[in-house]
Amino acid sequence: MKDTEVSVLGLGAMGRELARALLDAGHRVTVWNRTAARAEALAERGAVVAGSPGEAVGASPLTVVCLLDEDTVLQALDGVGAAGRAVVNLTNGTPEQARRVAELVRGQGGDYLDGGIMAVPPMIGGPHAFLYYSGSERVFREHRPLLDTFGAAHYKGEDPGAAALWDVALLSAMYGMFGGLLHAFALARSAGIDAGEVAGDVGAWLTAMGEAGPEYARRIDTGDHTTDVVSNLGMQAAGIRNVLATAEEQGVSTALLGPLADFMRLRLAGGDHAAEDLTGLVQLLAPGAETV
Amino acid sequence: MKDTEVSVLGLGAMGRELARALLDAGHRVTVWNRTAARAEALAERGAVVAGSPGEAVGASPLTVVCLLDEDTVLQALDGVGAAGRAVVNLTNGTPEQARRVAELVRGQGGDYLDGGIMAVPPMIGGPHAFLYYSGSERVFREHRPLLDTFGAAHYKGEDPGAAALWDVALLSAMYGMFGGLLHAFALARSAGIDAGEVAGDVGAWLTAMGEAGPEYARRIDTGDHTTDVVSNLGMQAAGIRNVLATAEEQGVSTALLGPLADFMRLRLAGGDHAAEDLTGLVQLLAPGAETV
Ligand SMILES: NC(=O)c1ccc[n+]([C@@H]2O[C@H](COP(=O)([O-])OP(=O)(O)OC[C@H]3O[C@@H](n4cnc5c(N)ncnc54)[C@H](OP(=O)(O)O)[C@@H]3O)[C@@H](O)[C@H]2O)c1
Ligand SMILES: NC(=O)c1ccc[n+]([C@@H]2O[C@H](COP(=O)([O-])OP(=O)(O)OC[C@H]3O[C@@H](n4cnc5c(N)ncnc54)[C@H](OP(=O)(O)O)[C@@H]3O)[C@@H](O)[C@H]2O)c1
Repeated sequence: MKDTEVSVLGLGAMGRELARALLDAGHRVTVWNRTAARAEALAERGAVVAGSPGEAVGASPLTVVCLLDEDTVLQALDGVGAAGRAVVNLTNGTPEQARRVAELVRGQGGDYLDGGIMAVPPMIGGPHAFLYYSGSERVFREHRPLLDTFGAAHYKGEDPGAAALWDVALLSAMYGMFGGLLHAFALARSAGIDAGEVAGDVGAWLTAMGEAGPEYARRIDTGDHTTDVVSNLGMQAAGIRNVLATAEEQGVSTALLGPLADFMRLRLAGGDHAAEDLTGLVQLLAPGAETV
Repeated sequence: MKDTEVSVLGLGAMGRELARALLDAGHRVTVWNRTAARAEALAERGAVVAGSPGEAVGASPLTVVCLLDEDTVLQALDGVGAAGRAVVNLTNGTPEQARRVAELVRGQGGDYLDGGIMAVPPMIGGPHAFLYYSGSERVFREHRPLLDTFGAAHYKGEDPGAAALWDVALLSAMYGMFGGLLHAFALARSAGIDAGEVAGDVGAWLTAMGEAGPEYARRIDTGDHTTDVVSNLGMQAAGIRNVLATAEEQGVSTALLGPLADFMRLRLAGGDHAAEDLTGLVQLLAPGAETV
C-alpha cells in the first residue's frame, strides 16, 4: 500500500473535483458513489469504480470522504472495516459531528482526520483553495503531499472538531455576506435597476468595508469597543433603520437584516454604548465569549 | 457668490471631515453645528462659525448638510430661507425621506441635490471614496469640482430618491457582511480562539467568495437560477444547518443567520429548487422584483 493509492467516497460537485485532482496528480484512484452513473466520466479517466463503500475503503490505505452531511457519512462508513486504514472526511459538519465520525472510524480500528474545504469545486487545486484539518496528526503528516493536491493545508490540532469550527466560522461570515448581497440585489431590482448594474459598486464597497475586519477583531479581542469616532453605534443604528425603512418602501423583506438592527437597539438600550463601534454587539451575540 | 464659498451643517465624524476637505481644497467654509465646541478645531483652520443653520445657509451659494438623520435635517433646514441657494444633503436616508427634504428646500425656493457617501470619514478625499447624487442636475454640474473634493461623484438622475436607493443597496450588502463577521468572530472566541487569529483567513475567504457577486447578479437579472452544479441549494441548506448547529453547540446566537436558513428551507419546500443556486431566494425576498 503506497500513498499513490487513494479512494474517494462521494462524487457530487465537490467529490468529483477531488477525484479528478487526484487522478491528474497521478494517483491510483478508487471511487464510490450512491448514484453509480456519476462515476463514469472518472472511470474513463482511469478511476476504479467500487461497488460499495467497504470495497472502496478496502482498496486504498487512505479514503477521502466528501458526502452531503453527517448522516450520509455515518451511513456510508457503517461497518466498512477501516482497521489499519486512514479516513479523511471532508464533508461539511459541526465540531460535534466531526467527533462522532471520528469515534465511528476509530471504533473500527481506523485513523481519522477531519477536514473543511475552503473552496468551491472550480477552485480545487488552484492557488486560492485552502483546507482545514484536525484529528490524527500522523495521518496529516503522512499524507500531506496528497492532501496538498486539493489546496493549502492548515492543521488545527488533534481535536477532530477543530477544523469544523474554523470552517464554519468562515462559512458564517460568507453567509452573512451572501444574505447582504441578495438583499442588495433585490432592492436594486425593486427600483427597476438591474442587479448587474449595481454589482460592480457593491463589490468595490464590500472590499473597502471588509478592511474593517482586522480592526473589528482587535476590538473584540481586547474588549475595547470605543471608536476613534469613525462610525459610532448611535449613527449606525439610525443608518440601519434607514436600510430597513427603504426595504419596506420598496417591498423587500427585512427578515435578513432586521436581527442586526434589533441587536443594535438592544445594545443601545442596555447602557451607555452610543459612542461604541458595532463590535460591542458580540457581547449580545455570545455573552461571555469575549472573556474566554 | 462664487463656488469657492460653501457652508457645512453638521460637524459629526463625517461633517468635520467634509469641512476639513473643503478647507484643504482652498474653499471659504462656513460651518454650523448644534454643539458649537465641535467647530473649534475647524475655526482654527480658517472656517467661519455660524450661529444658526439659517446664518450658514445665507453665507454661501451652496450648503452641504451632513446630520444624523431626516428628523435632524428637517429641523435644521426649517425656515432657513434657501431661496436662490443650493442645498446638497449628504445625510443618510431613504428614497422617500430624500424626496421630502427636496420638497422642503424647493418650497423655500432653493435647489436640492441629495447624496449618499460611500466612505468612512478617513476615506474622504481619498482614492476609494465615492458618492451618489440625485436631484437637481444643474446643481450637480455647477458644483461638480467642489463635490469631487469628497470623492468620485456618480449622478443617478433627477429623482431626489435615486441616490439613497443606491446608497442603501450598498449599505444592505455591507450590514449583511458585518453581521457575518461579528458571528464569525463570536464563534471563534467561543472556542477560545482570538478573533485576530481567524481574521486573515476570514478576509481571504470573503474576498474569494465575493467574486460570486457578478454571477449572482446575472442569475437574478435573467431569472435563470440553475447552477452549473457548483454549490446547489440542497447542499447549501445542509451547510447552513451546520452553521446554525455549530452556533448552538458553541453558545452563539443564531439570530443573524437563522433567517437565511429559513429562506433556504422555504425555497426548497416551495418546489423543485434543490439544484438551484442561492440566488433563487430573491423570489422570496422580493416577490416580483425579478420581473420588474
Ligand atoms: N460545492 C461546494 O461549493 C462545496 C464547498 C465546500 C465544501 N463542500 C462540502 O462538500 C460536501 C459535498 O458537497 P457537494 O457540492 O459535492 O454536494 P452535492 O453535489 O449535492 O453531492 C452530494 C453527494 O452526497 C451524496 N449523497 C447525498 N445523499 C446521500 C445518501 N442518502 N446516501 C449516499 N450518498 C448520498 C450524493 O450522492 P448521489 O450522487 O447519489 O446523489 C453526492 O455524492 C458537502 O459537505 C459540502 O458542504 C461543498
Ligand atoms: N461616519 C460614517 O462612517 C459615515 C459614512 C457614510 C455616511 N455617513 C452619514 O453621515 C451622517 C453623519 O454621520 P456622522 O458619522 O457624522 O454621525 P455623528 O458623528 O454621530 O454626528 C451626528 C451629527 O448630527 C448632529 N445631530 C444629532 N442630533 C441632532 C439634533 N437633534 N439636532 C441637531 N443636530 C443633531 C450632531 O450634532 P452634535 O455634535 O451637536 O451632537 C452631529 O453633527 C449620517 O447620516 C451618516 O449615516 C456616515
